[in-house]
Amino acid sequence: MKTRIGILGYGNLGKGAEIAIAGADDMELAAVFTRRSPADVKILTEGVPVVQAEEIEKWTDKIDVLILCGGSATDLPVQTPKYASLFNVIDSFDTHAKIPEHFNNVDKAAKESGHVAMISVGWDPGMFSLNRVYANAILPDGKDYTFWGKGVSQGHSDAVRRIQGVKNAKQYTIPIEAALEAVRNGEDPELSTREKHLRECFVVLEEGADAAAVEKQIKEMPNYFADYDTIVHFISEEEFNANHSGMAHGGFVFRSGKTGLKKENKHIIEYRIKLDSNPEFTTSVLIAYARAVKKMYDEGQRGCKTVLDVPPAYLCTQSGDELRAHFL
Amino acid sequence: MKTRIGILGYGNLGKGAEIAIAGADDMELAAVFTRRSPADVKILTEGVPVVQAEEIEKWTDKIDVLILCGGSATDLPVQTPKYASLFNVIDSFDTHAKIPEHFNNVDKAAKESGHVAMISVGWDPGMFSLNRVYANAILPDGKDYTFWGKGVSQGHSDAVRRIQGVKNAKQYTIPIEAALEAVRNGEDPELSTREKHLRECFVVLEEGADAAAVEKQIKEMPNYFADYDTIVHFISEEEFNANHSGMAHGGFVFRSGKTGLKKENKHIIEYRIKLDSNPEFTTSVLIAYARAVKKMYDEGQRGCKTVLDVPPAYLCTQSGDELRAHFL
Repeated sequence: MKTRIGILGYGNLGKGAEIAIAGADDMELAAVFTRRSPADVKILTEGVPVVQAEEIEKWTDKIDVLILCGGSATDLPVQTPKYASLFNVIDSFDTHAKIPEHFNNVDKAAKESGHVAMISVGWDPGMFSLNRVYANAILPDGKDYTFWGKGVSQGHSDAVRRIQGVKNAKQYTIPIEAALEAVRNGEDPELSTREKHLRECFVVLEEGADAAAVEKQIKEMPNYFADYDTIVHFISEEEFNANHSGMAHGGFVFRSGKTGLKKENKHIIEYRIKLDSNPEFTTSVLIAYARAVKKMYDEGQRGCKTVLDVPPAYLCTQSGDELRAHFL
Repeated sequence: MKTRIGILGYGNLGKGAEIAIAGADDMELAAVFTRRSPADVKILTEGVPVVQAEEIEKWTDKIDVLILCGGSATDLPVQTPKYASLFNVIDSFDTHAKIPEHFNNVDKAAKESGHVAMISVGWDPGMFSLNRVYANAILPDGKDYTFWGKGVSQGHSDAVRRIQGVKNAKQYTIPIEAALEAVRNGEDPELSTREKHLRECFVVLEEGADAAAVEKQIKEMPNYFADYDTIVHFISEEEFNANHSGMAHGGFVFRSGKTGLKKENKHIIEYRIKLDSNPEFTTSVLIAYARAVKKMYDEGQRGCKTVLDVPPAYLCTQSGDELRAHFL
């Protein structure tokens, strides 16, 4: 029997999840739940109902894992504990500083109701976290580096859009090649914020706006830009729509560690991803871990889990024999 | 209480394991077992006994995990099942084609005696296997690439040394940069053996040996060299000893996958390691997984395991709370 997946929220993530489920032979999409009017939500999969989020309680015996596709700022802190009391759930909560608090809330709800709830699944947190943990366990004496990009930072794009006179804006975070090379070469550099990433903005101005003033406001914005070298381009709306609607992203996780009696041997571990579509990659990770949620639930595990708790084999459709024969 | 580790076999791996244990606060080296005369084996850690391998049965209640540091060709196929019936064990068995058979033999012994036995731990098999499995689970529609090097291939070095007239030899396997770049750029190239790796040999000749004949024999050797571009350097014994005694190695695992309704989005995952000391990195992985063996045994698991069965958190000394706060 296929694992029955529900999707709550049908934005970029929800759509990505739907596509990833279509590519998984062992899963089927049972329903998409939305807070909008279901009649207004057109999904890609034929024959699958779109259901009012308020009706979700009627689906508890028809869904094995519910994928929560809301945002980390306001949706998931409420939704994940709430729905963990009804379903096995999985989310991509990515506010790093609030993960311990989110974990505790979700763990309580999932344990009380007897479900598995997996949080913070994606690439960072997610695959990057895994790589940090593996590399730290193997090389306990060392240094960690994470670089993001090249890719769009939603938060920084929003910050630019809030400036008066800005009609639209995209901000790309770009890792600085010289920094990557220094890490890769085992130089263990101490890198300032400015030395790690460059920020590049593409801005469409409102008519009559003062470009110089906008550029100054961007570059001097505390927290977001002041500590970085920032390049600002002013472009037309046509160029913006033609060239800056993509959702590419990526990044690097390094660990540089030493071993040996006199710490004379250096080792560098590098994990790198280069993604054409940030939401589709994130949901591809979510779907693999949804498979694990079902397995962990079936074997009697309960409570909140993260990627750090999951044996890699649980992500796979193949048997242990097949995995050992083909991948080990 | 610290996890008590035994080491069987005191070559490069055994020595590496000893050094890694010294760096792990939660472990202590209980004894080193050797098939040589113990008096001839001088270890680095003071106060730890070196014991005849035949005496090992007396140590069953003094060791939590026994690390088997023998070779994959003849030692481990015998040793791992044998000692899995007495101890929790871990090995670095790396003959890929024989892993399923080895797994079955070890699983039987470990289950009958009630132990955990982990096999094929290191970097390939090991960390590379993990990366192949994660990347395949996330991107089910895609292509895998593994490159090795730059590093010494023991098997190829041995093959050169068996040629008449060769006094000593080292063979380096070198990934070809153009192939790496094509994969990294998402070109999904079909690569022949010759296009993936270059082989470079440094050879010391016996006095009076015919260099041209040796070079021809190397380059035409079936399986080992005939399918590759091979560079042969003849050097003096002094140069050999000065420059070619290192144990550096490394490699790359890539997965290039597609997502999207029309498979229009490409994603590249790259895992790379660059190691000054192959045996010390391998044993660093072994020690992290020895920690997991103890945890799995304590929670009641039994039988043969591989890296694919281990939750990442089990490799760590930190608590779940600490891991979530610092690494997720």
